[in-house]
Amino acid sequence: MGARKADSADPIAILTDFGYRDHYVGVMKGVITSIAPAAQLLNITHGIPAQQITAGALVLSHSWRFFPPRTIFLAVVDPGVGTERLPIAIATRSGARFVGPNNGLLAPAAREAGIKAIVELRSPKHRLPATSTTFHGRDIFAPAAAWIARGTPLKALGPHVPSLTELDLGAGISQSGKALAGQVIYVDTFGNLVTNLSRAQIEGFAGSARHDRLSVRLGRRGWLRIGGTYGDVAAGAPLALFGSFGLLEIAVRDGSAAGVFKADIGAPVVVKK
Amino acid sequence: MGARKADSADPIAILTDFGYRDHYVGVMKGVITSIAPAAQLLNITHGIPAQQITAGALVLSHSWRFFPPRTIFLAVVDPGVGTERLPIAIATRSGARFVGPNNGLLAPAAREAGIKAIVELRSPKHRLPATSTTFHGRDIFAPAAAWIARGTPLKALGPHVPSLTELDLGAGISQSGKALAGQVIYVDTFGNLVTNLSRAQIEGFAGSARHDRLSVRLGRRGWLRIGGTYGDVAAGAPLALFGSFGLLEIAVRDGSAAGVFKADIGAPVVVKK
Amino acid sequence: MGARKADSADPIAILTDFGYRDHYVGVMKGVITSIAPAAQLLNITHGIPAQQITAGALVLSHSWRFFPPRTIFLAVVDPGVGTERLPIAIATRSGARFVGPNNGLLAPAAREAGIKAIVELRSPKHRLPATSTTFHGRDIFAPAAAWIARGTPLKALGPHVPSLTELDLGAGISQSGKALAGQVIYVDTFGNLVTNLSRAQIEGFAGSARHDRLSVRLGRRGWLRIGGTYGDVAAGAPLALFGSFGLLEIAVRDGSAAGVFKADIGAPVVVKK
Repeated sequence: MGARKADSADPIAILTDFGYRDHYVGVMKGVITSIAPAAQLLNITHGIPAQQITAGALVLSHSWRFFPPRTIFLAVVDPGVGTERLPIAIATRSGARFVGPNNGLLAPAAREAGIKAIVELRSPKHRLPATSTTFHGRDIFAPAAAWIARGTPLKALGPHVPSLTELDLGAGISQSGKALAGQVIYVDTFGNLVTNLSRAQIEGFAGSARHDRLSVRLGRRGWLRIGGTYGDVAAGAPLALFGSFGLLEIAVRDGSAAGVFKADIGAPVVVKK
Repeated sequence: MGARKADSADPIAILTDFGYRDHYVGVMKGVITSIAPAAQLLNITHGIPAQQITAGALVLSHSWRFFPPRTIFLAVVDPGVGTERLPIAIATRSGARFVGPNNGLLAPAAREAGIKAIVELRSPKHRLPATSTTFHGRDIFAPAAAWIARGTPLKALGPHVPSLTELDLGAGISQSGKALAGQVIYVDTFGNLVTNLSRAQIEGFAGSARHDRLSVRLGRRGWLRIGGTYGDVAAGAPLALFGSFGLLEIAVRDGSAAGVFKADIGAPVVVKK
Repeated sequence: MGARKADSADPIAILTDFGYRDHYVGVMKGVITSIAPAAQLLNITHGIPAQQITAGALVLSHSWRFFPPRTIFLAVVDPGVGTERLPIAIATRSGARFVGPNNGLLAPAAREAGIKAIVELRSPKHRLPATSTTFHGRDIFAPAAAWIARGTPLKALGPHVPSLTELDLGAGISQSGKALAGQVIYVDTFGNLVTNLSRAQIEGFAGSARHDRLSVRLGRRGWLRIGGTYGDVAAGAPLALFGSFGLLEIAVRDGSAAGVFKADIGAPVVVKK
C-alpha cells in the first residue's frame, strides 16, 4: 500500500460523527495519505451528533455543492458498523463521488448529484489487510476514497449494488389550504433551529402572497413573521429567516433559539399565510 | 467558478467563532478550494467564544506573525452579519492580507502589520452567485480570500474604504506611580487567565526595579510574585508569568486558574512594585 | 526562517492535548509552514485529555503505523514544560521520526518503530529566535519537525541523548492460572472503555480455549462474553470486543459504556476462561 506515489489526485471531503477527542479521523487521514499522498483532505465536520444519520444526511446534502466538482465525499455515521449494511461507493453525473455505509446517509446528496452507479466495497486489494469489525472508516471507507482519488474506477472496488437505502429529509411535511407543516431537523452550534421547509416549498405555498405576510409558529408559541435579517430585531428577540441551508430557520439575535424556545430536533413548525 | 486551475497560491489561515460541530467552516473550505485549489488551508482556531470580537482580535493579533509572510488571514467573528457593517479586505506592508467584517476584529493585527489599503468586498464576480444574508463567511469572505490567494489584486474586489473600525486591546489600562492596572481579556483551554498587560508595558512600569520584585493581584486575592516557570511551584499552586501571548498570565500548575480564582474576562488585575 | 522554499517535504502528523478552542495548534502550523511550506500537515488529534501522558502515548502508539512511512510525528503532551525534561527527536528504523518532550509520551511508539538515534533539540538555528518557557510546541518542537520534514539530519538539531524516559502501557497486567487482569487505559468519545489487554495477550492466555468461551468482568459487574459485533446485541446492551486499537474494549450498543458502567481510566478488568 502506498508504494506508488500519485502525482495528482482529486480532493476528499470528510464528514463523520467521530468528534474531535479521539484519533479516529486522524488515522483515516493517515490511511488516505499513505495511498493517495497528493489528495487534498478537507473536513466538512466531525461534529455530527453521534449516530444521527438524518443530521449527517442533511449536512452532506447542503454541503456537497460548495466543493470542487470532482470531490470524493467520505461520510461515516454508521451505527450499524459490523452488521449487514453494505459499504458502498456512488458515482454521480455531477462528477462528485460518495463513499460510506448504505444506511441512508449518502442518499439525499447522491440523488441531488444524479446517481450513475453504486458498488459494494468488497475488493480485498482496496481495503486494509486486516479488516476490523468496528472501524470500517479506517479499514474500508478511507482506502476506497483514496483509491478513487487516485483514479481507480469504481467497478474495480466491487460488484454493482442494485438498491440504495433511501432517507427522506422531507418526512413529516404536509400542506393544507392555509397551513404548511414541517419540523426542526437540525440545531446548529448557535442554537438556530433549522426546519425541513425550504424557501422553494414556502414560496410555492405562498403563491401570490408576499414573503413578509407569512408567519411561522414553533410548537405552541406565538406567530413570528418570516423574513428580514439580524439587523431588523433587537438583541434577544426571535426571528424567522431563510438561513445558510436555504431552509427556514428560527433564530434569536445574539442568543440561542434552542434555549429560548426549549426546542430540539423533531419540534413541529407551522407556516400560515 | 473554479474551472481554471491555479498552479500556485498563497496560504490562507482561518479564524472563526463557528465551532466544530457544524459544517460552516467545511463549506467555506469547499468554496476556497473550488476557486484556489492550490491554496494551503490552515486553521488558526474556530473556537473563539461566540460573537466575542475582542477575543478574536486578540488571538489574531498574537497569531499572524507566526505564519508565512504572504498569508491571507480569513477571520469571521461577525455578530452584525446582514447589517450595515462592511465586508472588507486589507493589504499590509508586511505582505499579510486580512479578510473579514469591518467590526474591529481585523484592526489590531492589521495595524501591527502596517495597513496599506482597505477595500469593500463588493465585486459580484468575486462572490458566490446567490449571496445569503446570514452566511457571509461562505458567500463573500471565503471567495475573496481565495481570489486574493490566486493573485487577484485587492482593488479588483471593490472600492476603497476610508475608515477602519478600531478596537483597543489595551482598554482599561491605567498607571499611577506605584500601580499598573489592566484586566483579563482571554481565558484559554487550560484556564490560564490572560491579561492585557504586555511584557514591554510592565518592564516600562518597573523601570530599574527587577522583574521578580513585581507583584500582581487578581481581584481581591493576595499578591503573586511575577516570573518563574511551572517548575518553580508545586502542583495546584498559582503563578504569574509571561505566557505565549507575550502578555502577563495568571496560571495554576496542573490546574485551572479560572476555576481556582473564579475569574473570567473583565476581571481587574493590578501590578505593583 | 522560511526564506528558502522547499519543493518537497515529508508529512507531519500532530498530536497534542491543546484542545480546539485556542490558537496554539494553529500557530504551530504557521511556524511549520513558514519553514517547510511543502509539508502536508495531518492532525492525529488535539483532544488528548489535558496533561495525560499515558493517554497520549497510547493513542500515538496505535496511530503511527497508519501513516506514510516517512511521517514525522510531532507530539506535545507536556505538563513539565519549562522544567528539566529535555525536548527530543527520535529517528527509527521504520522511517518514522518522533518529536516531543522526553517524558514517556514518545516511548511506546518509538520502541515499536525501532529506535535508531535520539537527539536533544538544542540547536539555536532550528528554534524560533525568542524561546518562551511556556510554549515549546511553537518555539522548539514545531520548528524541529519542520526542519526534519525538509531533510535536515537529526544530528544537526543537537547532541545525542543517552536515555529515553520509558512508559509502560502494560502496567498492572497480571496473569494467574485462570485469570488475566488488566485495566481501562482510555475512554473514547463514544464512551467505549479501552483496556490494556491486547488480542495477542488474550489469545496467549486462552491457549486452546475458544475466544467465545472467554468472559470479562469490569469492576464488580457480572461477566460478559468476549467477541461478536454490535449487530449481535440489542440497543442498550453491553458487549466486549476487540476494538480498533486491537485491544479489548467494553462497549454498549447505541450507548456509552462509561456512563452505563460508571467506569473510567484505571478501572480493573479481569478475563477468565
